[in-house]
Amino acid sequence: MGEPAGERLAVWAPAGLGEVRPGDDLAELVGDLLDRPAGDPDALAEGDVVVVTSKIVSKAEGRVVAADDREQAITDETVRVVATRERPGLPPLRVVENRLGLVMAAAGVDASNTPEGTVLLLPEDPDASARALRDALRSRFGIDRLGVVVTDTAGRAWRDGLVDIAIGAAGVQVADDLRGGVDSHGRPLSVTVTAVVDEIASASELVRGKAGGRPVAVVRGLGRFVPAAWGEASDGGAPGGGPAVAPVGARSLVRPSQDDLFREGSAEAYARGYADGLAAHD
Amino acid sequence: MGEPAGERLAVWAPAGLGEVRPGDDLAELVGDLLDRPAGDPDALAEGDVVVVTSKIVSKAEGRVVAADDREQAITDETVRVVATRERPGLPPLRVVENRLGLVMAAAGVDASNTPEGTVLLLPEDPDASARALRDALRSRFGIDRLGVVVTDTAGRAWRDGLVDIAIGAAGVQVADDLRGGVDSHGRPLSVTVTAVVDEIASASELVRGKAGGRPVAVVRGLGRFVPAAWGEASDGGAPGGGPAVAPVGARSLVRPSQDDLFREGSAEAYARGYADGLAAHD
Repeated sequence: MGEPAGERLAVWAPAGLGEVRPGDDLAELVGDLLDRPAGDPDALAEGDVVVVTSKIVSKAEGRVVAADDREQAITDETVRVVATRERPGLPPLRVVENRLGLVMAAAGVDASNTPEGTVLLLPEDPDASARALRDALRSRFGIDRLGVVVTDTAGRAWRDGLVDIAIGAAGVQVADDLRGGVDSHGRPLSVTVTAVVDEIASASELVRGKAGGRPVAVVRGLGRFVPAAWGEASDGGAPGGGPAVAPVGARSLVRPSQDDLFREGSAEAYARGYADGLAAHD
Repeated sequence: MGEPAGERLAVWAPAGLGEVRPGDDLAELVGDLLDRPAGDPDALAEGDVVVVTSKIVSKAEGRVVAADDREQAITDETVRVVATRERPGLPPLRVVENRLGLVMAAAGVDASNTPEGTVLLLPEDPDASARALRDALRSRFGIDRLGVVVTDTAGRAWRDGLVDIAIGAAGVQVADDLRGGVDSHGRPLSVTVTAVVDEIASASELVRGKAGGRPVAVVRGLGRFVPAAWGEASDGGAPGGGPAVAPVGARSLVRPSQDDLFREGSAEAYARGYADGLAAHD
């Protein structure tokens, strides 16, 4: 099929997936949702990116625990407590680094849009989930260059409001590294690495909405970030003479905590410093 | 004109703006770029959002300073130093809160895609810039419901790679507050406020690219976030029986530092705590 120019993006989120349940074959459900007659403009095409929420991935993978165990589930998912905030009448809000390296409130344990009495953990390995979904959709639809992104909703430092980010990715270049390029004045672009899959996640959230029951979106027009299949060329490089791009997942966008200027909440760091300062006298 | 359903988004970035220079009438340049014959599908329509980079706003507004003064410019734009990092052979990286409340590396002072020997400051008041551009485009094209977003590129805590965020907005609902709503199981959505304009900024970056010289994008399909003109209804509310929405700009997404768990870099907070702990003995 023809491919739209890179400077035009279409994003849509078909209705009708229905409730996903533990043990469901997610690839089959998503495939059925996206199946269109030949010639339908919404039929999946080369260069498309399929975006799914982590919620439906988690549901299909059975990552459900009883809501009574929510605080324990957060503890279990926590690698490192980053910051906490007291909340009247509620357990303290815990911003933690979870086992995926993601810094998130409540470790990403989710209590909305889940069956009554349950909460959802994030997928065990969202990059692997993305790869499996991509493999199945490529095979079913006979498409070579297909990307898959798994999203979650995250808070940020310094800004109110949540945005969707990518926690899993396959078949799509996660970052656009322009550091070798030049700007329109011919000067080197020194520090510009764009988190492409995070921007894809945010774009898809705009069509999905939170309460709308449309957890699957298609993004068309980003074919430049969807190279021919990785892992099939023996050198792992992109064909067509382009630069070799490692088949990395969204995990690669996680900044290692030792490199992070905000690895610890301000109050927590201050308290630790204060204690150490006091102890320095002993 | 007809309006696409909310669940389908189109984003495009026309080429051909050319270099913007101090004193240029940005609204005229952007208007010329977006001017299309009647019936052209890309002609601006009700509910569209026009997204422009802060860079072209700053250029038109003459926010240019000599590159030699870059470190001084960063100092001048800084309200509060949040964190610093030493860099071999370079001045320390300064992550600061700037006079717009934004926490950004180098205060948002920009040295790429600027004329040789110069750097760019952020617009004086990006929300006001967005309002002025919106007023001019609405008037020129006879469109009532038009949004304008001014973007900048920002780093994040905890994640590598940059994404575009909204630093100015007019005529578009900056956040989608779902806290009064219910999820698909009928339970209250307790903490979900989506930073809509940040997601719009990120979506537009995907079509713009950094080095491509296409600093203007149009986002179509978000009419639900673009109510009839604010400031014309005497009560400031949205028509059609929807909830009243204050005509707030992107500034409202800035979290006040006193509410921020990451108001200060971890190392800086620790050092301050250590000093206070030591001094507590005196």
